Amino acid sequence: MPELRKDPIIGRWVIIATERARRPDQFSGAAQDGPAEKPCPFCEGSESKTPPEIYALRPKNTPANGPGWDLRVVPSIAPFLRIEGDLDRRGKGLYDLMNGIGAHEIIIESNQHIANMADLSDEQISKVLDCYINRIIDLEKDKRFKYALIFKNHGWSAGAGSIKHSRSQLIATPVNPKRVKEELAGARSYYEYHERCIFCDIVKQELASKDRLILDLDGFIAITPFAARFPFEIWIMPKKHSCDFVSLDADSRNYLAKVLKIVLSKLKKGLNDPPYNFVIHTAPFRRQKSGYWKSIDYDYHWHIEIMPRLTRVAGFEWGTGFYICPLPPENAAQFLREVQI
Amino acid sequence: MPELRKDPIIGRWVIIATERARRPDQFSGAAQDGPAEKPCPFCEGSESKTPPEIYALRPKNTPANGPGWDLRVVPSIAPFLRIEGDLDRRGKGLYDLMNGIGAHEIIIESNQHIANMADLSDEQISKVLDCYINRIIDLEKDKRFKYALIFKNHGWSAGAGSIKHSRSQLIATPVNPKRVKEELAGARSYYEYHERCIFCDIVKQELASKDRLILDLDGFIAITPFAARFPFEIWIMPKKHSCDFVSLDADSRNYLAKVLKIVLSKLKKGLNDPPYNFVIHTAPFRRQKSGYWKSIDYDYHWHIEIMPRLTRVAGFEWGTGFYICPLPPENAAQFLREVQI
Repeated sequence: MPELRKDPIIGRWVIIATERARRPDQFSGAAQDGPAEKPCPFCEGSESKTPPEIYALRPKNTPANGPGWDLRVVPSIAPFLRIEGDLDRRGKGLYDLMNGIGAHEIIIESNQHIANMADLSDEQISKVLDCYINRIIDLEKDKRFKYALIFKNHGWSAGAGSIKHSRSQLIATPVNPKRVKEELAGARSYYEYHERCIFCDIVKQELASKDRLILDLDGFIAITPFAARFPFEIWIMPKKHSCDFVSLDADSRNYLAKVLKIVLSKLKKGLNDPPYNFVIHTAPFRRQKSGYWKSIDYDYHWHIEIMPRLTRVAGFEWGTGFYICPLPPENAAQFLREVQI
Repeated sequence: MPELRKDPIIGRWVIIATERARRPDQFSGAAQDGPAEKPCPFCEGSESKTPPEIYALRPKNTPANGPGWDLRVVPSIAPFLRIEGDLDRRGKGLYDLMNGIGAHEIIIESNQHIANMADLSDEQISKVLDCYINRIIDLEKDKRFKYALIFKNHGWSAGAGSIKHSRSQLIATPVNPKRVKEELAGARSYYEYHERCIFCDIVKQELASKDRLILDLDGFIAITPFAARFPFEIWIMPKKHSCDFVSLDADSRNYLAKVLKIVLSKLKKGLNDPPYNFVIHTAPFRRQKSGYWKSIDYDYHWHIEIMPRLTRVAGFEWGTGFYICPLPPENAAQFLREVQI
């Protein structure tokens, strides 16, 4: 059973992922490049190579776990967290831990062997966004969970492993991720003083200055953030205030799909298909019910953070929280604006 | 001039390092392995290849910037921060920034071409520790600086670049690193409730349980932390309470050198010379003068964090603050205890 353990000093929860545990001697040596790709378990026709599907977009006359689908969601074969069981929060001396309960799902974005989400059609990306929303709504019903994290690892050095087939991941957790909590607290503090959403103010300032603006299209902007941590770090934000990604209506999903495709295509074309991660930052579950989160509808603003993995100078950043970005975000934005796709 | 920019939501300062800036198109493609090593600028006899030395351990009859030294400190040729100038804190709309003022020094740990600190003698490591302390004391006099960060990048994927010669880095900053602030706040909160130092309590619990204990020697312990973020993450802590690394006496420096050599040698031997980073966490400068820090002599406890770079599954961790560690720290500690050096 995996465990969730709390750092007693910082208060950060960490997953000790026993399901993926390797023996200590298997970590030997420097990080290597990925092994050759095996036959892909995520292509149409290989359904038996994955655990049974949780969700699929497929014609009604096709049976589950067979061909004919357009998009599939399956549990991870090596889940970081387990779906069955109780949290059993407990102490161990001064330490806090709980069972590693949660969901860990793989969203297979296409039945074709396409590696980069940038190469999916607008329509297919829109279906992927629909799927994210459907899965979050479903998992929110489970009272053990506080948050659903949608993220993507593209490319070996972004953590994608040896399988290239484009997919996203969803992790539902019984705790809120530290970074999300910090954002919520920071946004609330700004709101308390200014009585305005800090993200809305950022959208306004970026639209006015245009220095870090990559794209302004159909209700969304893509910017490089002012205090970028990484070269070509990109945030996609809805221009209209909304704390909750799940509340995105059908038209806006189509618009977001278009924006995402343009941004990912510019990254792919301009930077030679770099590895990247993206993470959707949205409001936690059941935010209305607790006093702490009661203002969140006004002070939080969902967005997507895209982090290309182009530098390795990130060693001491982990240890200090001090990021050094070797490319001014204004230069990155200008470069990406000019990439023709 | 590099800039320090503050993330308006999280409050984290980021260095936008113009001195190391590359053109956007130079980031193209996936991260590659390092280029072949050029003639080493850090070996004895190559003094003219570095900027003039700031500090050196050398016989009195040898001139500065010539051979004969035992250890040298030089400014970085591509400093993240600049030593000359005013901070000029200012706003830009809702954003906060200041000039990238600070110090960035390279501590060349040996006149021999030795790549891993594990292969220096105890005596030489002790001299390196002396040097850290001397440089921190010197930089603390500069009223513009709040913190001195000592860290080491070993191996290409830990950010060491193409030069293998063992060296540490020192960055003095006009702001406290976010992670340090979080530790200070967490430790203070624990102290306020318990009236005990949380690090001292951790030392006691780890010595009692022994599950995560790697070494208990001469007043120091080396442990894998309970909520480890990375496989084989290691903390070295003094058993006796002390908030300030600089206050380490001469005997303790020798003992710490011995402990550091054993731990780094176990990592090298047991894991085939893995890339790693270490960071010294110590109290900020001038902590006595401000009300906020007045309890820090009691509630903070300096320590060294060592982070081997053995996994690449760290993509979304950056975006979420949610770490997944694929090896229980108890297994890592047992493995390291058993490595014979």
